[in-house]
Amino acid sequence: MIFPFTAIVGQEDMKLGLILNVIDPTIGGLLITGEKGTGKSTAVRALAELLPEIEVVKGCRFNCDPSSDGLCTDCQKRIEQGEALDTERKKMRVVELPLGATEDRVVGTLDVEHAIKHGEKRFEPGILADANRNFLYVDEVNLLEDHIVDLLLDAAAMGVNYVEREGVSFVHPARFILVGTMNPEEGELRPQLLDRFGLSVKVQSIKDKALRAEILKRREEFDLDPEGFSKRWQPQQEELSRRIMEAKGRLSAIKVPDEVLEKIVTLTSQLNVDGHRADIVILKAARALSAFRGKEEVGVEEVRDAARFSLGHRLKRLPFEEIGAEREKMEELLSKL
Amino acid sequence: MIFPFTAIVGQEDMKLGLILNVIDPTIGGLLITGEKGTGKSTAVRALAELLPEIEVVKGCRFNCDPSSDGLCTDCQKRIEQGEALDTERKKMRVVELPLGATEDRVVGTLDVEHAIKHGEKRFEPGILADANRNFLYVDEVNLLEDHIVDLLLDAAAMGVNYVEREGVSFVHPARFILVGTMNPEEGELRPQLLDRFGLSVKVQSIKDKALRAEILKRREEFDLDPEGFSKRWQPQQEELSRRIMEAKGRLSAIKVPDEVLEKIVTLTSQLNVDGHRADIVILKAARALSAFRGKEEVGVEEVRDAARFSLGHRLKRLPFEEIGAEREKMEELLSKL
Amino acid sequence: MIFPFTAIVGQEDMKLGLILNVIDPTIGGLLITGEKGTGKSTAVRALAELLPEIEVVKGCRFNCDPSSDGLCTDCQKRIEQGEALDTERKKMRVVELPLGATEDRVVGTLDVEHAIKHGEKRFEPGILADANRNFLYVDEVNLLEDHIVDLLLDAAAMGVNYVEREGVSFVHPARFILVGTMNPEEGELRPQLLDRFGLSVKVQSIKDKALRAEILKRREEFDLDPEGFSKRWQPQQEELSRRIMEAKGRLSAIKVPDEVLEKIVTLTSQLNVDGHRADIVILKAARALSAFRGKEEVGVEEVRDAARFSLGHRLKRLPFEEIGAEREKMEELLSKL
Amino acid sequence: MIFPFTAIVGQEDMKLGLILNVIDPTIGGLLITGEKGTGKSTAVRALAELLPEIEVVKGCRFNCDPSSDGLCTDCQKRIEQGEALDTERKKMRVVELPLGATEDRVVGTLDVEHAIKHGEKRFEPGILADANRNFLYVDEVNLLEDHIVDLLLDAAAMGVNYVEREGVSFVHPARFILVGTMNPEEGELRPQLLDRFGLSVKVQSIKDKALRAEILKRREEFDLDPEGFSKRWQPQQEELSRRIMEAKGRLSAIKVPDEVLEKIVTLTSQLNVDGHRADIVILKAARALSAFRGKEEVGVEEVRDAARFSLGHRLKRLPFEEIGAEREKMEELLSKL
Amino acid sequence: MIFPFTAIVGQEDMKLGLILNVIDPTIGGLLITGEKGTGKSTAVRALAELLPEIEVVKGCRFNCDPSSDGLCTDCQKRIEQGEALDTERKKMRVVELPLGATEDRVVGTLDVEHAIKHGEKRFEPGILADANRNFLYVDEVNLLEDHIVDLLLDAAAMGVNYVEREGVSFVHPARFILVGTMNPEEGELRPQLLDRFGLSVKVQSIKDKALRAEILKRREEFDLDPEGFSKRWQPQQEELSRRIMEAKGRLSAIKVPDEVLEKIVTLTSQLNVDGHRADIVILKAARALSAFRGKEEVGVEEVRDAARFSLGHRLKRLPFEEIGAEREKMEELLSKL
Amino acid sequence: MIFPFTAIVGQEDMKLGLILNVIDPTIGGLLITGEKGTGKSTAVRALAELLPEIEVVKGCRFNCDPSSDGLCTDCQKRIEQGEALDTERKKMRVVELPLGATEDRVVGTLDVEHAIKHGEKRFEPGILADANRNFLYVDEVNLLEDHIVDLLLDAAAMGVNYVEREGVSFVHPARFILVGTMNPEEGELRPQLLDRFGLSVKVQSIKDKALRAEILKRREEFDLDPEGFSKRWQPQQEELSRRIMEAKGRLSAIKVPDEVLEKIVTLTSQLNVDGHRADIVILKAARALSAFRGKEEVGVEEVRDAARFSLGHRLKRLPFEEIGAEREKMEELLSKL
Repeated sequence: MIFPFTAIVGQEDMKLGLILNVIDPTIGGLLITGEKGTGKSTAVRALAELLPEIEVVKGCRFNCDPSSDGLCTDCQKRIEQGEALDTERKKMRVVELPLGATEDRVVGTLDVEHAIKHGEKRFEPGILADANRNFLYVDEVNLLEDHIVDLLLDAAAMGVNYVEREGVSFVHPARFILVGTMNPEEGELRPQLLDRFGLSVKVQSIKDKALRAEILKRREEFDLDPEGFSKRWQPQQEELSRRIMEAKGRLSAIKVPDEVLEKIVTLTSQLNVDGHRADIVILKAARALSAFRGKEEVGVEEVRDAARFSLGHRLKRLPFEEIGAEREKMEELLSKL
Repeated sequence: MIFPFTAIVGQEDMKLGLILNVIDPTIGGLLITGEKGTGKSTAVRALAELLPEIEVVKGCRFNCDPSSDGLCTDCQKRIEQGEALDTERKKMRVVELPLGATEDRVVGTLDVEHAIKHGEKRFEPGILADANRNFLYVDEVNLLEDHIVDLLLDAAAMGVNYVEREGVSFVHPARFILVGTMNPEEGELRPQLLDRFGLSVKVQSIKDKALRAEILKRREEFDLDPEGFSKRWQPQQEELSRRIMEAKGRLSAIKVPDEVLEKIVTLTSQLNVDGHRADIVILKAARALSAFRGKEEVGVEEVRDAARFSLGHRLKRLPFEEIGAEREKMEELLSKL
Repeated sequence: MIFPFTAIVGQEDMKLGLILNVIDPTIGGLLITGEKGTGKSTAVRALAELLPEIEVVKGCRFNCDPSSDGLCTDCQKRIEQGEALDTERKKMRVVELPLGATEDRVVGTLDVEHAIKHGEKRFEPGILADANRNFLYVDEVNLLEDHIVDLLLDAAAMGVNYVEREGVSFVHPARFILVGTMNPEEGELRPQLLDRFGLSVKVQSIKDKALRAEILKRREEFDLDPEGFSKRWQPQQEELSRRIMEAKGRLSAIKVPDEVLEKIVTLTSQLNVDGHRADIVILKAARALSAFRGKEEVGVEEVRDAARFSLGHRLKRLPFEEIGAEREKMEELLSKL
Repeated sequence: MIFPFTAIVGQEDMKLGLILNVIDPTIGGLLITGEKGTGKSTAVRALAELLPEIEVVKGCRFNCDPSSDGLCTDCQKRIEQGEALDTERKKMRVVELPLGATEDRVVGTLDVEHAIKHGEKRFEPGILADANRNFLYVDEVNLLEDHIVDLLLDAAAMGVNYVEREGVSFVHPARFILVGTMNPEEGELRPQLLDRFGLSVKVQSIKDKALRAEILKRREEFDLDPEGFSKRWQPQQEELSRRIMEAKGRLSAIKVPDEVLEKIVTLTSQLNVDGHRADIVILKAARALSAFRGKEEVGVEEVRDAARFSLGHRLKRLPFEEIGAEREKMEELLSKL
Repeated sequence: MIFPFTAIVGQEDMKLGLILNVIDPTIGGLLITGEKGTGKSTAVRALAELLPEIEVVKGCRFNCDPSSDGLCTDCQKRIEQGEALDTERKKMRVVELPLGATEDRVVGTLDVEHAIKHGEKRFEPGILADANRNFLYVDEVNLLEDHIVDLLLDAAAMGVNYVEREGVSFVHPARFILVGTMNPEEGELRPQLLDRFGLSVKVQSIKDKALRAEILKRREEFDLDPEGFSKRWQPQQEELSRRIMEAKGRLSAIKVPDEVLEKIVTLTSQLNVDGHRADIVILKAARALSAFRGKEEVGVEEVRDAARFSLGHRLKRLPFEEIGAEREKMEELLSKL
Repeated sequence: MIFPFTAIVGQEDMKLGLILNVIDPTIGGLLITGEKGTGKSTAVRALAELLPEIEVVKGCRFNCDPSSDGLCTDCQKRIEQGEALDTERKKMRVVELPLGATEDRVVGTLDVEHAIKHGEKRFEPGILADANRNFLYVDEVNLLEDHIVDLLLDAAAMGVNYVEREGVSFVHPARFILVGTMNPEEGELRPQLLDRFGLSVKVQSIKDKALRAEILKRREEFDLDPEGFSKRWQPQQEELSRRIMEAKGRLSAIKVPDEVLEKIVTLTSQLNVDGHRADIVILKAARALSAFRGKEEVGVEEVRDAARFSLGHRLKRLPFEEIGAEREKMEELLSKL
């Protein structure tokens, strides 16, 4: 039994950051920084639990989406051979990337045993295959080796994992919601890599005593009677699930006024933000937020909120403590937006 | 022959910390810090020896608990095939994690030989499998590689070991009492990892001469005539074993007054403790303690005692020697609780 | 769908640097330095997409050019056995070199499986084989190990990959357009290696707000309707493709007045440039530029522009910040050319 | 031919330290620190040579002791199958642990060849198996990797080697006399590890000229006529061998007055000694010494002598040169005992 | 097509250093230090191209010289079996030693595949085998691992590669002209290794503008019409080839007056040169030079020129910048020779 | 052809040090320190060439000495099976230990191929096997890994190589003359290891001009006509060979007056020499020297000369430059001997 997502007390930013990525997975994932023991992993698992099942090609090792044309090499062959692809429904999973995972483990490799026995090379799926259409959770992403982080972020950006080993090439979709956590006291990510996470949030433990007691009480209740507790939260769970799926459906219909585009570029040109990725992410996050809030078009408020999620990890790290200065400048610009 | 647990002189904190984890294994283990030569390993082995046998599925490589529904993949298959699971009784063991153990050794891996001979892949259990329902003893946990500690703590937190290797997935319960030792002079654990140990105690050698002579005398007696010595301590052993099992049985019936919850969160919000894990552990430890003491509900005294076990390793390490200051503050808050 | 090359806003140097290498691949590649998030990888993919298909030997694992006499060992054998080589047409690809690629992965190795099964050793192509007649894109080339960079640059310089493993030797053409990127804040390339890239450009994010909004708007349009957007840019795409291919065809006909040679050596002898490679690259780039601009002979203007592309990464890194001084000196000499 | 133990000039501490461990192997080994070229390795080999043969199970790969119930897995199986265990007599050996030995080499591993050929996994004994009931000599123990030292000391403490590899578990006795040497100028052992050696002695080259000449002369005599020399020392050799075996036999009969226990704990509580291991070792060494000296009960003199062997490596290493101060304090306390 | 050696502009020292090694390969190779982009690799390839074909044993994997008695193990066996060795003619090659080459790659190893298939061990030639009677070109020799450089220099000194692997021993001649390059800014060679290169030269890019333009013009001509350009330089090429071969033939006939020997040792004893290798190299180089210049005996002038090639890398590296001082002292001594 | 030992100019210490080890191989080898290019390797090879052939068991892979009872496991088995051991004569060889040699390469290992094919494990000899009864030459011994040096020195000390791998044990004699070279500027040997070399000498290039010219002239003569040169030196070669063999034969007959023993220990006790190895080595070297000089008993002069060879590398390295002081003290003591 998993603790219900809607019963999680506080941590609104983290929860919203996850939801926005579910609504528009091209936003590019969420980086959660901050204190230990704040329920990061619990929240991701709880959100996966709350979402409705997804439809996949039956028997496909990569969870191919029958309605998409980005199928894996196996499914493509079956179609070419005139086979019809049956479907089945599956719960979304949270796939974890262990510290110390090798490149082969991440992207997949050849199934040597199969090759020896059956005389033909076969692709052995890796973590990116498991992660397709699921959450990929990377705890302490700043402790991973750089080239592994690179692989993840490349796959996340392309939505595809293309592997070529010993003359065998294999393609499969790798569209996942990347959730990374890091404790900045234990080492930074290179700015190159930071920039490739769509959104970021900072979590802290809750200081309010009443809320803390509430956390403890709900945990207590859940531990003693998980089924009963879950049943009590069922209505909220269903309501949130419905809202998320509805927002997902309406996403492409949300309008973006020219004024909004201008506000975005004005904002990013005034801040020390490298490149153009931030502009695009702010726009996407603002659109997802508008959809979640039931709006018809992106408003200034959504740009402001989306910017906070999008810019935090892209502000320049100036020498000495001017990071605070950059942050203040951002807040000032946002308030005047 | 193992030296009887009840004949161990002094080291009351260590002994109680171990007992609380036996009463409620979800407390999350015990970290023992301090001097060498203080009988840490002896105490754990002695406690395992004292406890009654556990009931396991006969022939199961993972000590599956027949009364639980968290069975291993093998047992699940047998049930699905309509097989009835026989049971047998086994002594609890102390499984040691050697320094330098690899990931494969810890979580298990594929049995390549079996695959080659019988043409089917089979899961080869690792240390986490051995540890299920036993003690897992990790000497000098601060000298392990971080990603191994991570694996241990993840498994300890989830109670499950989920392995996926080359297309084979295997799940087995991994509920163990994690006991780690460390000598802080030889390197620290990262706060991330510290926080995930439920309780901690500090051990020192006994300074009282009479007690030291008593230790030496008992050891001497035991070395010369282990059977006779053990027989003399049999009554105390049985009495303690009975008390522990009784407390275990009564655990869920212990009441937690609201006032207790409030005291806990008041305490942790006043101290520099990250996250919410401490709150939960204090509550669990206090409940186990109340059960052990034969009480009907958790009292302030149990919160106070549980807090000492739960907060020691979670106090912030401030620059310079303010660790002492934090400790004093804790004691003051505890005395006013 | 790939974003159209001609719809990319700004970054004219990067785009021209890529085009010149397509016109004359012996220029020796392009090193792109500068900020993250400036669409480097997108631009290369977009250019590959825009170019017409190339003609290759049908079934050749190395994309051999049927009109060249530098064929791979396989094709040579087929010719020696009197076989006629059929041809087919293929789109150019962008081959990526992953960080952490091994030497075997880059140059190819023996196909052990084939050897065991068929009793004959066979060459297993590597990344250099994939890259023949394509783009080879190396992200963060400064983070690669030196000996891998060496291998790349050697192959790039010779246009041939010669492999000898366990008594088997294999030759195949390895003519590719090498595109490397680096962020100088994360470590430098050794001058040895820098010098072997033909051209270099520096990219920055665009500061002009109108342009930024245009980027965002085009991206938005493309994301919502990729087919429609691509169709709208089709005429510009075809026009550029035509111009590039025409320049390529006219290249050897461009005249080089003696005065131009003199200007080149005057320039490089006045600057702190080691060796003679810069002279040759300036000449080649100026000729390609003249062809692209529809001129009959190389003019001073083309020398000036080519020199900027060719000298940036070859100026001496003097102690203290005289790099600026060298750059100013270059600009001054160029203005007086 | 080995130089006779009794013909070794001087180095009385080292020789006595070795003898005490032979009399009571549970003392836990001897750490010899000090100068090179002082015949450490020669002395151990000479003592092994002098001791009578031991009785072992015939054909057992682990030198199982037929009179003990701690048999290896092989012998246990044979007994279970109703087989009678024949015995044979063997000379004790000095097994050396090479620098750079791996874990598998030390604890043993699976015999892969046997597995492939005979279809059953078999345990391949390691150095700990060779060492059972022999001397295990570790030259420059401070240069070994920590986790190897750990393995040795764990096995030494438990007297058992328990190996589990790929589903095969094997137990065999590993009771050996551990002799380690180190030159403290080349790096220290961690206090954790130091503490687990039972006794320690310091050796220096002999300064007395007459003794030095005697050493040289005896060596000279031995080199020119090993047989003759050995024969001349035969009586002393036999006498010492007899004394050691007698002391071994009388060991459990030696009485320990309460006053002795008190003196031991008084001593260790006044010194900066962590833990309780020192108390136990002093007691054991004093008892062995009393037996060797033909006494009926442990006297103050034996405590004093045993303490010198037991405390030298357990004194706290205080910052600056207070190690001398601790040593002086020890000597003073010993003189007043 | 390779650019003709005689058409290379300038770099006279480098060219002469190479030629002297061709005339007397026992001189021990050439170390080229200095700037990148100065055509080092081009010059070596061009010289190999210019030299006449060599006569080798037909089918020999080691290019054995039919007129020498230092044959490889294979050829020796064929002779012992009464076989006559046919000959064929081959162009000399430039074999490159890749950075990161392993010992097995360099000296050769066993052909495991052959062993498995044919039941007999066979030697698998390495780079030293390829290099026999060819040039061995080592780019950036200072970046190689020391033990690989050692292997090269040992083989170069002995002229033989003796390999013993798993009971198979194999000998083959390894007489090659070793050409190493290094950029001293990227790390030094140990003096041990420097000393074992016969000669050294320093290269710099040409500063003279007319010469630079000439280089560019010739390169331009060659690139546009390689065949025509090569034909135009054919006479010079043939003339130089003839001169080199003639000098090679006359080498042993060149007389060495006693006065010359004396001048050599006077020179080296006055300079800070370790050992006696320099004396011998100066003598050999002076003799080769005299032969190349058509002289009958070695003159003072040849000693002077040979000394410059031989001493540059053998002068002591004194602390602070006295290397200049040593160099001045050398020049002064040479001028007075 | 090898340059004749007796034609080597100068370097008397090095030559004598080698000869003494030939006369008494239990002296324990020679460490040559000093400048490069001083013919160290040449001298060892030349001495091996000069010595008469040795008698070995025919077909023995370990050069077993038929007159010794320390035979290898193979020869022992043949004798046990009643086989007579034929003999043959072999030239002594100089076996080189390559930098980077692994432990398996040095001590030998199992012949896996043989095991697979013939179903029985067989010992695959290593470098120590090759070295038996030969010279083992270790260039730059200070650059070897410590545990490899340890292996060498252990084998050298015991005269035996005992290998145990996967249940197979093999013993073979490993009596070799260890010659190590080192350049102290490139790193020291640990005193532990230094002490285990029997003798040491320091070499420098010869400064005397006449001698240098003589070296050059002889080298010149040898290079032009190796056979003729060798023939001219034949008488000296034979004379020296005869003297060495005679000294070897008379060695055990040389008398050692008590006064000599006393002088030796007086000397070493007055110097800062650890342990007793120096005493023994001085005695052995003095005896070998006396035999070489045709004396009947060891004289003071031989002690003095032997001490210089034996003490140089055993003097304490005091902080600051007192090494010179120690050396002066030694010389003073020697002069007064």
